[in-house]
Amino acid sequence: MTAEIIDGKAFAARLRGEVAEQVAVLKRDHGITPGLAVVLVGEDPASQVYVRNKHKQTLEAGMESFEHRLPAETPEAELLDLVGRLNADPAVHGILVQLPLPDHIDAEKVIAAIDPDKDVDGFHVSNVGRLATGQAALVPCTPLGCLMLLRDRLGSLSGREAVVIGRSNIVGKPMAQLLLRDSATVTIAHSRTRDIEAVVRRAEIVIAAVGRPRMVTGDWLRPGATVIDVGINRIEDPEAGKTRLVGDCDFESCAAVAGAITPVPGGVGPMTIACLLANTLTATCRAAGLPAAEGLTA
Amino acid sequence: MTAEIIDGKAFAARLRGEVAEQVAVLKRDHGITPGLAVVLVGEDPASQVYVRNKHKQTLEAGMESFEHRLPAETPEAELLDLVGRLNADPAVHGILVQLPLPDHIDAEKVIAAIDPDKDVDGFHVSNVGRLATGQAALVPCTPLGCLMLLRDRLGSLSGREAVVIGRSNIVGKPMAQLLLRDSATVTIAHSRTRDIEAVVRRAEIVIAAVGRPRMVTGDWLRPGATVIDVGINRIEDPEAGKTRLVGDCDFESCAAVAGAITPVPGGVGPMTIACLLANTLTATCRAAGLPAAEGLTA
Ligand SMILES: NC(=O)c1ccc[n+]([C@@H]2O[C@H](COP(=O)([O-])OP(=O)(O)OC[C@H]3O[C@@H](n4cnc5c(N)ncnc54)[C@H](OP(=O)(O)O)[C@@H]3O)[C@@H](O)[C@H]2O)c1
Ligand SMILES: NC(=O)c1ccc[n+]([C@@H]2O[C@H](COP(=O)([O-])OP(=O)(O)OC[C@H]3O[C@@H](n4cnc5c(N)ncnc54)[C@H](OP(=O)(O)O)[C@@H]3O)[C@@H](O)[C@H]2O)c1
Repeated sequence: MTAEIIDGKAFAARLRGEVAEQVAVLKRDHGITPGLAVVLVGEDPASQVYVRNKHKQTLEAGMESFEHRLPAETPEAELLDLVGRLNADPAVHGILVQLPLPDHIDAEKVIAAIDPDKDVDGFHVSNVGRLATGQAALVPCTPLGCLMLLRDRLGSLSGREAVVIGRSNIVGKPMAQLLLRDSATVTIAHSRTRDIEAVVRRAEIVIAAVGRPRMVTGDWLRPGATVIDVGINRIEDPEAGKTRLVGDCDFESCAAVAGAITPVPGGVGPMTIACLLANTLTATCRAAGLPAAEGLTA
Repeated sequence: MTAEIIDGKAFAARLRGEVAEQVAVLKRDHGITPGLAVVLVGEDPASQVYVRNKHKQTLEAGMESFEHRLPAETPEAELLDLVGRLNADPAVHGILVQLPLPDHIDAEKVIAAIDPDKDVDGFHVSNVGRLATGQAALVPCTPLGCLMLLRDRLGSLSGREAVVIGRSNIVGKPMAQLLLRDSATVTIAHSRTRDIEAVVRRAEIVIAAVGRPRMVTGDWLRPGATVIDVGINRIEDPEAGKTRLVGDCDFESCAAVAGAITPVPGGVGPMTIACLLANTLTATCRAAGLPAAEGLTA
């Protein structure tokens, strides 16, 4: 078997297009322009790239983008103050504080300070709790993107056996909640899981969110499984004499067994910002008492 | 194999004893008496029994018990008002609104109105979110009781295969979170799960929280599994000519295969109120800035 490649890049582009259309409708019919505020503290190079991309794609979707760049030594109180002002600003519908934050700032406290209805990252405990209890939540972007790819490929997920490898708060655990909400039978595996190969081999749906380059190999898979590779790992490539990105799955051997698989790069990666825009649109609609656009939420 | 019977009644009695000891220490060293407020709206007979038992056991543990019985036709606003007063009352450390509520009252809204730090049922979205993200939470009483029984029997749960049958907000889902927190490999099964027997047969730990009398039979179990039966189902007993309580597991056939099993009644049931008292103690300690008593929390 040779797996179908799930083109996350193309899917994300379509999704951004749909968001842009809905934004245009919101402007035309309701005079509302969704606004996303992104706060970056310090000069972390990877974060700078993310923030630049977010800014660009936000504008392309027809939204307002508010960038706040603060020096690395910004006191926590000042950041909390800014969050408070953004909470109160009616032009701001979504707030994202780029992680990681400098060590002297308590990220948990900062996230807790964001108005849950503007928390487009979905990290606030209220959103985590809403997701878990089946209430309308803002859902973390990366697992939301994975869910969209899965639904697109498989239709209903009801009754399917899914294994999520990884239990982080930003990927693994919300992913498991989303799959459960769609009525999959969900197993969560992690570093303490025994005989993980056998656990993964049970699954029709495998989500790898581990951070270990090419850990999952083809012999771990049930033939025909749908594999979503969330991992983004930079490794040395001695042949090319430089570094390159690989996922948590060994693409070649997995593609030989899976029914479908996301590549790295070009799979889950591009979905994350697209889902951030979708979340910002959702937050805007809810704030205005309008229904959230179909297909853009969980 | 004949399973060891897990004596939840005895365990719960010991737990209540530990809580009472800690309450005495709190009074002696800090002059604090934990107070639990229980609100009952209407005359549901089962709820009346629960509330009476809670009241009695709260007093026996040396805590203050505040009972609020409101007529079935109490307007929602009045109930919310009472919750607000209990939130503000420093003598009240725990608040429990007995469910189910009459139809004209929105239970979700009432739970959302309870101060999360006094929410000893652990149903507030903030507590659900804290549990899921690994922060200090108040945890729903029934799954907390199951966790204590499992730890007592098995020691570390790390790496063990666990299956939770049922995904309700009050048992199944928080149970899965607790098992994951203890590093079990956790599968959540439910009414859409295919070939559920095979899924259950994988598990060293089985938690049944379904509400279907004797659904799980011995042939579903891996020999030696630890079985926690949360179900409480009243069935007709034609032989005795009256009704009796059974669990979600068929006790006889399961006990022949399992390594250990909780009976119904006398298993998980008595743990729930004992854990409510433990939660009230935990809430009191946290409110006073004191460490929560060891072994009484998740
Ligand atoms: N936009 C995107 O596409 C996007 C977004 C976020 C993350 N990512 C990528 O996704 C990956 C995971 O991110 P994360 O934030 O979830 O990572 P994380 O917080 O480090 O969590 C990693 C998880 O993997 C588990 N794990 C570690 N080693 C394992 C092993 N040998 N076997 C099984 N499980 C193991 C850990 O288990 P324990 O809990 O037991 O330690 C943990 O739960 C990373 O490569 C990251 O770069 C991509
Ligand atoms: N103190 C105590 O001991 C205590 C406390 C609470 C509850 N209980 C008892 O525990 C049981 C469950 O309570 P609950 O409140 O969690 O019930 P619930 O809200 O009705 O949830 C039942 C769960 O079981 C699942 N289910 C139903 N039929 C199934 C089937 N044939 N196969 C597999 N799963 C099935 C449902 O799946 P879907 O989600 O797909 O519908 C649902 O997730 C009840 O008997 C209750 O009386 C005892």
